[in-house]
Amino acid sequence: MNTTKKVAIGVDVGGTNTAIGVVDPEGNVMIKDNIPTATHGNFEKFIEDLATAIQGQIASAKLLNENLEFLGVGIGAPNGNYYSGTIEYAPNLSFKGVLHFVKLIRNYFPEMPALALTNDANAAAIGEMIYGGARDMKNFVMYTLGTGVGSGVVVNGDLVYGHDGFAGECGHTTLIPGGRLCGCGALGHLEAYCSAPGMKRTAFELMVQYNATDSLLANKSYNELDSKMIYDAAVAGDFVAKLVFEKTGHWLGQGLADTVHHLSPEAIFLFGGPTAAGDLIFKPTIESMEKHLLPIFKNKIKVLPSQLKPGDAAIVGASALVWQELKK
Amino acid sequence: MNTTKKVAIGVDVGGTNTAIGVVDPEGNVMIKDNIPTATHGNFEKFIEDLATAIQGQIASAKLLNENLEFLGVGIGAPNGNYYSGTIEYAPNLSFKGVLHFVKLIRNYFPEMPALALTNDANAAAIGEMIYGGARDMKNFVMYTLGTGVGSGVVVNGDLVYGHDGFAGECGHTTLIPGGRLCGCGALGHLEAYCSAPGMKRTAFELMVQYNATDSLLANKSYNELDSKMIYDAAVAGDFVAKLVFEKTGHWLGQGLADTVHHLSPEAIFLFGGPTAAGDLIFKPTIESMEKHLLPIFKNKIKVLPSQLKPGDAAIVGASALVWQELKK
Repeated sequence: MNTTKKVAIGVDVGGTNTAIGVVDPEGNVMIKDNIPTATHGNFEKFIEDLATAIQGQIASAKLLNENLEFLGVGIGAPNGNYYSGTIEYAPNLSFKGVLHFVKLIRNYFPEMPALALTNDANAAAIGEMIYGGARDMKNFVMYTLGTGVGSGVVVNGDLVYGHDGFAGECGHTTLIPGGRLCGCGALGHLEAYCSAPGMKRTAFELMVQYNATDSLLANKSYNELDSKMIYDAAVAGDFVAKLVFEKTGHWLGQGLADTVHHLSPEAIFLFGGPTAAGDLIFKPTIESMEKHLLPIFKNKIKVLPSQLKPGDAAIVGASALVWQELKK
Repeated sequence: MNTTKKVAIGVDVGGTNTAIGVVDPEGNVMIKDNIPTATHGNFEKFIEDLATAIQGQIASAKLLNENLEFLGVGIGAPNGNYYSGTIEYAPNLSFKGVLHFVKLIRNYFPEMPALALTNDANAAAIGEMIYGGARDMKNFVMYTLGTGVGSGVVVNGDLVYGHDGFAGECGHTTLIPGGRLCGCGALGHLEAYCSAPGMKRTAFELMVQYNATDSLLANKSYNELDSKMIYDAAVAGDFVAKLVFEKTGHWLGQGLADTVHHLSPEAIFLFGGPTAAGDLIFKPTIESMEKHLLPIFKNKIKVLPSQLKPGDAAIVGASALVWQELKK
């Protein structure tokens, strides 16, 4: 006689593709699939097609193990609002305005115990708490470094959504007053310095500063250069590339210190492409954070790499919402 | 037949004096007293003398109304740690190291339902929630502007203490990288710009910048000038003094925006001397905050004056800890 195995479904809504996966209680993706996000005509049709894809995943997963019990669907989406289950004015989605995601998908899964939505970085933070390095922590913060910089804040074991569902946008704190133009239109935000494109901007700023014609990065156009090339050049000993990591860490550490002064978390987790550089980024980040901290906070806040696996993190994080919902 | 009236005791520990008051459920101070903080020889003797003073207040209050029921003692203290009930390495107190305040005072009040301690700004935030303008709010932040800048963060109706009991030090976020020396030893913290002494520094910076020999402030020494003089000069139309408020608001608004990006509170309350200037400080603060915010947060976060009465706020805030404890 087989016993039931409880699983959760994670959905990661991106501008181009939406990924769907079935995740076990240890955070392993048992099976996953993709559908395009933008080609469905309208949002209602997208939800219908997504529901069909989810039902397909459920059927496929049951072929692998007929005793699966599906506890819910967790959705990570840009500008996702946990309270209302809506996506609101997401700049990178083709669907505009306020989208009633949870309400619409509920029609297709009337019996599913948990259906919940939040933004990608909040989902990643919950993923870290349910499956990753924050399993024993009640107070921590997650920074996700990628095209942008997202964050998720956990206080007393609960994700902080704020009064409107949108808390945890630490990427938009001001690092340099009057500094670089951020994608959001404001000046000097952390995201304009510590995201992957921010690192590219820093590389060009440094080449300008030092007229670094002999840098390994000096033969790439502004549109060609990416953070992986900067990493490879740093490993090869390139002066400019190494300094990019130094400066990025310096800026990120300043931002992390601001977060510590607000929340005094046990740890701050870093997730995303640039964090794969290990000590190159962690060392200057930690040094800078410590320098900016009040004495009572010095040498006690951990800065740690996320334990979520890069490829599956978005699906896994979204699925973690389901377990978190069912705890309540 | 008289019915019982429940009351709480608030204790505000300062470097020079410690104030004790009996506070009713509406936040009115029924009776209050002071003892010196530093003249007791050692901390154990201070606690003994404080306990005697509290017992005196209880006796005096009972003469006013014999049906009082004393529910607890709430203590606001610099570097107060809620979790451990200790004061830890407070720079402005004559007692050094880790002081086991709650443990020691408990010996004198073994039957008191609630005994709790936190720092002054956290106590003010709880005071705002129990008696003041945040009575219907679950998510808000309090900034206290005075000799320093303190803050208290409330999420989902609970004060955020962080992993170590010290969360809510927003006055030590970095506003200007490499900027003014802060009292804590770091550079460019908000407190060095937006506290009362920060405003004085700004006044002198502006007199230097404009060689403002005709300013009403130009006849005061660096040690003479205070924020009240700057306020009076601004009301009298002085160019430098008005610009001090503009700049202070600009800096404070940048800091408040960082707080919004972390926590998305319903409101941020401002408390303390400089906030008495009303629109002079609120207008530039709100304008600057809005300018620094992500679009999803614009025009929805309230910036409000605290409703705690300036003279009694510290006692009243500390007493609020008692009601908050008994809610749990």
